[in-house]
Amino acid sequence: MADVNRQFLLKSRPVGRIRESDFEYREQPVPVPGAGQVLVRNIYLSLDPAMRGWMNPGQSYIPPVAIGDVMRGITVGRVAASNHPGFAEGDIASGLLGWQDYGVAEAKHLEKVSHGLPMTASLSVLGLTGRTAYFGLLDIGKPEKGETVVVSGAAGAVGSVVGQIARLKGCRVVGIAGSRDKCAWLTGKLGFDAAVDYKTGDLERDLGEHCPNGVDVFYDNVGGETLDTVLRLINTGARIVICGAISAYNATEPVPGPYNLRMLLVKRARMEGFIIFDYRDRYAEATAQLAQWVEEGKITYAEDVVDGLEQAPKVINRLFDGANTGKLIIRISDEP
Amino acid sequence: MADVNRQFLLKSRPVGRIRESDFEYREQPVPVPGAGQVLVRNIYLSLDPAMRGWMNPGQSYIPPVAIGDVMRGITVGRVAASNHPGFAEGDIASGLLGWQDYGVAEAKHLEKVSHGLPMTASLSVLGLTGRTAYFGLLDIGKPEKGETVVVSGAAGAVGSVVGQIARLKGCRVVGIAGSRDKCAWLTGKLGFDAAVDYKTGDLERDLGEHCPNGVDVFYDNVGGETLDTVLRLINTGARIVICGAISAYNATEPVPGPYNLRMLLVKRARMEGFIIFDYRDRYAEATAQLAQWVEEGKITYAEDVVDGLEQAPKVINRLFDGANTGKLIIRISDEP
Repeated sequence: MADVNRQFLLKSRPVGRIRESDFEYREQPVPVPGAGQVLVRNIYLSLDPAMRGWMNPGQSYIPPVAIGDVMRGITVGRVAASNHPGFAEGDIASGLLGWQDYGVAEAKHLEKVSHGLPMTASLSVLGLTGRTAYFGLLDIGKPEKGETVVVSGAAGAVGSVVGQIARLKGCRVVGIAGSRDKCAWLTGKLGFDAAVDYKTGDLERDLGEHCPNGVDVFYDNVGGETLDTVLRLINTGARIVICGAISAYNATEPVPGPYNLRMLLVKRARMEGFIIFDYRDRYAEATAQLAQWVEEGKITYAEDVVDGLEQAPKVINRLFDGANTGKLIIRISDEP
Repeated sequence: MADVNRQFLLKSRPVGRIRESDFEYREQPVPVPGAGQVLVRNIYLSLDPAMRGWMNPGQSYIPPVAIGDVMRGITVGRVAASNHPGFAEGDIASGLLGWQDYGVAEAKHLEKVSHGLPMTASLSVLGLTGRTAYFGLLDIGKPEKGETVVVSGAAGAVGSVVGQIARLKGCRVVGIAGSRDKCAWLTGKLGFDAAVDYKTGDLERDLGEHCPNGVDVFYDNVGGETLDTVLRLINTGARIVICGAISAYNATEPVPGPYNLRMLLVKRARMEGFIIFDYRDRYAEATAQLAQWVEEGKITYAEDVVDGLEQAPKVINRLFDGANTGKLIIRISDEP
């Protein structure tokens, strides 16, 4: 075991885009777990758009990361020492262990990983983003066979899984993504019925073309103009799942809601937000189902793994630049 | 029976506020009902904010009123002639019979009125607005005992009934209205727990004061800044019922949605629109329950009845000026 715990702390709250200088690098001794606690050597760190919100001041669905605290993040790694009978040295565990080499947590805040997929899957298709796709689409969107499902941020870790689940449920699936390559991947590899490049085309026209029967479910990761445009195309009784609004996360001025909000009235539609942490008690259900689909070859997942904890403060902006496809992950140390 | 049918036709589509010149007055012979049809002498005409939308071009949840057509409106009156066994001369009937003395309709598009309340109740507490309150609150808002329900446009025909139903369901009820007198009426006569005058106070502060436990259900008739403000105060799992957005009906520029829309995500909240016409099959349920509550003295309803069909083109703007309390109704002719 190394004798140093490299950490990134939150140094300042970003205004707009995250700067590397918003983080402070520090080296500390490896922590010692207390009674009932577990020490985990982090191997992979998940980078997620939600982190931008956690860096803002003020209470949201969870408290902000305090200035001077280790930056919050979900990791997966190996148990290095355990004072709890539920975990043994060498077990694979995942939890909110932060941007650092070693994290300590109460056993009840950790998940023991037992699936047969690569370890990174615990941060992607079987982790936060896969579960977010699963519960948001099925519990909030409630797609029915034959309906049209549109997903924004479709080449992202959440959107790409949303679309594939919707296909498995017998829906017509149209993705919105930010490049020709991403669109080609969605239709060529993931089985989307169509994909629309919002950067080069006319979103309303292109989406209208590919949704000849209108939109029944819109799974939105983007917000802003994308949401506004899709609202024009919704059917009576449509469901709009608000998973995120990445287009506004770096905004420095207040961002207006959709000009077409009245479509909720005209179309008797429902718009609903959710937070994945509320589904904690049902994580096992999602993990089991998603693992089965992956093993059966019914769901493909992509990961963008970057080497080195020191890259995290820079690489996180890929999420806001639309520069990655699939799940953005930092490799902190070597397996196993 | 008179030998003239006075009518107001839609002459031009309003830009912004409705002008009297948007209507054309015409006198026609009294129509003769065809096979299976019923002729009704209109006695009362309901004036509703939704009419502003019906005057706009373009398909909404129902087609727009065509230029040159009799202006659409719900009336109640006496059957003057019937070619359908379900209606006899002298029966009281209600339907979309328009801004005119006499309307003809298929029997299936008319409701026979049999309640014991005054005839106007068919246009107010037992009609469109009462039913809108009933289904919107109970089916979409789903208030639970002990929750806090906020209603905007609270002194209007819909809002005033929403608040009283919510009280009957054991909720804390806070109204938003546009004058001190309206607020005094809500708390003094209708049993609202509190009422806030949005014109004179600081809505967020005042509402916050009267909703110490936050807002669980928001029944919104107003939209715009009101909706934006209430979003700041919603609780986890809140439901926002979009019944209308009267603040925007006369807008001549696109109106942005709420800046605080992200609260749907943070609070896992649901925002949902509905159209009362979808509840046609359940009208009888609402009418029976509302009539019982009125007869038991549990619901009070107010009407603002104006004499003379010729007043309709001018008086309709009271709805947008906040100049009326309760249901705005035109008396076209004398009872019985």
